[in-house]
Amino acid sequence: MDRSENLLHDLPPALPDEVTDVLLRGAGRFRLERIVSHGQASPPGFWYDQDEHEWILLAEGGAGLRFKDEPAVRELHPGDHLLIPAHRRHRVEWTAPDKATIWLALFWQ
Amino acid sequence: MDRSENLLHDLPPALPDEVTDVLLRGAGRFRLERIVSHGQASPPGFWYDQDEHEWILLAEGGAGLRFKDEPAVRELHPGDHLLIPAHRRHRVEWTAPDKATIWLALFWQ
Repeated sequence: MDRSENLLHDLPPALPDEVTDVLLRGAGRFRLERIVSHGQASPPGFWYDQDEHEWILLAEGGAGLRFKDEPAVRELHPGDHLLIPAHRRHRVEWTAPDKATIWLALFWQ
Repeated sequence: MDRSENLLHDLPPALPDEVTDVLLRGAGRFRLERIVSHGQASPPGFWYDQDEHEWILLAEGGAGLRFKDEPAVRELHPGDHLLIPAHRRHRVEWTAPDKATIWLALFWQ
């Protein structure tokens, strides 16, 4: 990564699945990813139950994030960030249907 | 961090120095910071020479970043990100004078 890159440019086209790019692997300590969504949501009834901790920043677009232990969906706007501890079950209820949603996601054990 | 926070909101006022907030410390593996600049630059002749690796994302505003081993200043725009390996000497030539510049910075050994 000699030249700088841009998180918001060179987006993949709308595809059936989200597109993930690993930006950085930090000496076995963490993994940094860009995830681009085009309207995708978690399948009905599906909950993520991850072995890794995840910190996410919604950089562009919008999304509804639901935790299984919370009644309400959290509506995320650009700049919103939060920690999802390992095994806290969650799902993406929706992402913006009309534009790309860009996430920055940091994972670690 | 039960509620989500926002990287772009609740900015500190313009102060003589940059303002740094630690967003997250990941199990001793990394440190994630928000840095807000209001026109600050590195002092003349000063070069950062850091023991840690640093990955930075310019989230808002603008900046000129110079590496000692490169002749030209890199102009950074929102979304630009790059890796600064430990001990690669660098300085901030300028940040936007008329608005806040918001950096997301990830440090690790």
